[in-house]
Amino acid sequence: RKIAHLGVFHFLNRVYMDYNATTPLEPEVISAVTDALRFAWGNPSSTYLPGLKAKDIINQSRDSIARMVGGKAEDIIITSGGTEVRTPVIFHQLLGGFLLVRHLLNGSRVLPHIITSNVEHDSVKIPVENLLKTGRADVTFLPVSMVTGRVEAEDVVSAMRPTTCLVSVMLANNETGVIMPVREICERVRAVKRPAFSPRVLLHTDAAQAFGKIHVDAQDLGVDYITIVGHKFYAPRIGALFVNGPGTSTPIHPLLYGGGQERSFRPGTENTPMIAGLGKAAELVTTNLAAYESHLLDIRLYLEQRLLAVFGEEKVRFNSHFPGSDTLPNTCNVSILGQGLQGYQVLSTCRRLLASVGAACHSDRGDQPSHVLLNCGVPYHVAANALRISVGRQTSRQDVDVVVADLRDAVEHLDCGRLQ
Amino acid sequence: RKIAHLGVFHFLNRVYMDYNATTPLEPEVISAVTDALRFAWGNPSSTYLPGLKAKDIINQSRDSIARMVGGKAEDIIITSGGTEVRTPVIFHQLLGGFLLVRHLLNGSRVLPHIITSNVEHDSVKIPVENLLKTGRADVTFLPVSMVTGRVEAEDVVSAMRPTTCLVSVMLANNETGVIMPVREICERVRAVKRPAFSPRVLLHTDAAQAFGKIHVDAQDLGVDYITIVGHKFYAPRIGALFVNGPGTSTPIHPLLYGGGQERSFRPGTENTPMIAGLGKAAELVTTNLAAYESHLLDIRLYLEQRLLAVFGEEKVRFNSHFPGSDTLPNTCNVSILGQGLQGYQVLSTCRRLLASVGAACHSDRGDQPSHVLLNCGVPYHVAANALRISVGRQTSRQDVDVVVADLRDAVEHLDCGRLQ
Repeated sequence: RKIAHLGVFHFLNRVYMDYNATTPLEPEVISAVTDALRFAWGNPSSTYLPGLKAKDIINQSRDSIARMVGGKAEDIIITSGGTEVRTPVIFHQLLGGFLLVRHLLNGSRVLPHIITSNVEHDSVKIPVENLLKTGRADVTFLPVSMVTGRVEAEDVVSAMRPTTCLVSVMLANNETGVIMPVREICERVRAVKRPAFSPRVLLHTDAAQAFGKIHVDAQDLGVDYITIVGHKFYAPRIGALFVNGPGTSTPIHPLLYGGGQERSFRPGTENTPMIAGLGKAAELVTTNLAAYESHLLDIRLYLEQRLLAVFGEEKVRFNSHFPGSDTLPNTCNVSILGQGLQGYQVLSTCRRLLASVGAACHSDRGDQPSHVLLNCGVPYHVAANALRISVGRQTSRQDVDVVVADLRDAVEHLDCGRLQ
Repeated sequence: RKIAHLGVFHFLNRVYMDYNATTPLEPEVISAVTDALRFAWGNPSSTYLPGLKAKDIINQSRDSIARMVGGKAEDIIITSGGTEVRTPVIFHQLLGGFLLVRHLLNGSRVLPHIITSNVEHDSVKIPVENLLKTGRADVTFLPVSMVTGRVEAEDVVSAMRPTTCLVSVMLANNETGVIMPVREICERVRAVKRPAFSPRVLLHTDAAQAFGKIHVDAQDLGVDYITIVGHKFYAPRIGALFVNGPGTSTPIHPLLYGGGQERSFRPGTENTPMIAGLGKAAELVTTNLAAYESHLLDIRLYLEQRLLAVFGEEKVRFNSHFPGSDTLPNTCNVSILGQGLQGYQVLSTCRRLLASVGAACHSDRGDQPSHVLLNCGVPYHVAANALRISVGRQTSRQDVDVVVADLRDAVEHLDCGRLQ
């Protein structure tokens, strides 16, 4: 069943453990997409039956996404993917913030200020760096604590300036799995007394890695924006943005201009089939989160236990263990210590395991240690050996046994090669 | 066969003739999408087998799209949809053009100038209007000729200024079907002698309505950018931009910032299944264009002939007939003259026909005559009655008979109601 479902038979006898990079689609999600491809191809803006049917599917999906994130349907803006979600928040909100700050400071040339962390995903990091480089914003890249792996709320508050207009901190890190104290950051930031001329501070969290793994509730977090990325929770490659009252409580500037779809926040003829899939995947998360979470945790703990048993405590370092920090249930970032055991070498020697050394977008610089791990205080020689092994809903204990044996063989092979 | 294929049985006994709004997916396209959903879900940036497989599918699709448009694979940038294609061209190129013009004019504050037509799709019109309103560009909305329905090259040349940096004219109009003289416009614009300080004029054509209906060849047209919209040619709801040598011969500014995908012109994890479908649909166009074109023309001519036969020459005006202008083979824009026969009333009275009164994005203001028709010189009372009937690859002569009888019944019913 699993094999047919995951299409793993196309990957020969490989065992996929890179679920933080992307996930397969759940069978129910594939059905929702293909049904819509066949039967809901009408233009959702058309007022006749095929259009209304498509519109209806989109609205149902929007409801499901809202339920998953703990928001209202009107808070959900569906977009083409995670990068498109984050860019308008970071980039275009900033242009809005820029105007606002200039206005409030009587036209004097001050830059808006953004606070973010030094372990964000490229789709947040790069637009922010771009704003900084082109002189359109001041940016504080807050270092995460080397003890907890987290952005600490105290540090966010200390970094605040009268010109701060955006705080963007991810909900869970894609490499270490560390869950950031976003709720506490929001509470602390909102409690800061600011000068009368200061702009409102908008809070964004990139929750790409969180859905389907941990509970996410917009009200509980208290943020203004949440980035939702479908292909990380067994949905197709589209995304959505939660905005707490878009256009009313919370400003939102459109990234695109066109035919008025998504209340003009994101125009363009809606991708009904992909949206149907996103809605179905969200529904599955809402229904089954507790089961997913406990399964992922069970498998990941078993994996860690087997790694310790096979390689010994001396040889194994978990880069995803930080005292006192909560982490994602499915993410094991591990270094097998020793010369010649760099992550990319171990992975290319493995015959069964499919995993990565960090974010997939960086796969072309796989022989460099992850800057995220280095920023979390992992020593260079340990970070160089890191493997990010992220398990999924269908990963079994037998899969873990296969993978650990494979890693043992790979490490023996590399050790032999080096010693000869 | 057709019924199952088009999912028309979900629409009861309706006959869909709104193929300019959107098209169903070809069965081969659905197969390509669903195969990729099942078996090519790997992250295309991952270097292991599932990622490489996804990357391979994306590259094959890029080749197919390039062949369809007469360009090279490296000229194709895949995006989430038509609106996203046009926005970066119009909006972000302009910001680039703005800087360029300022630089060339020694920093003096002149605005870049854009030339476009007064019958463009909203996804071109609205961003250009936005640039104008916010003082970021000067814009000439060239009126189309009321005789030919076309933007005439002569008028484009006359509108050119030393600051002109972009000409954007659609290849074929979505309502009238009129094919614009884009090749001639390019030749004439490129032949204009300009002051040394003037920026290069970039030429963009929105070819959303052209693919699968008429031959489109980038080299032949001579443009710098072509907008490609999947869901208008039986592909999924994604799009692509042809750029003649992106980053080398022709400037292109990224709209989004992120993980470096699409050579950073359009980052974000690629939507492999949708891209697979787009590639397959492009392949079908390349292979079958002649057959599609002659079938569409045959059906449309038969439709026009039946309308004339049933309603009489006195009562029928074709808003898609312009002396001397080429038009799309599939587009019949017709007004049935008479009081109380406004397009939206006729369509809501029809029991079989599914068509529209104009662009689907405008369906919420269906009781206003189309500004495109008015701009083409169609009198108000004729434009108010307009029906855009656009036929597709599977439309048959029997479908036409059903639709014309349905229209006759609807008009009789409305006439009776009015006279009572």
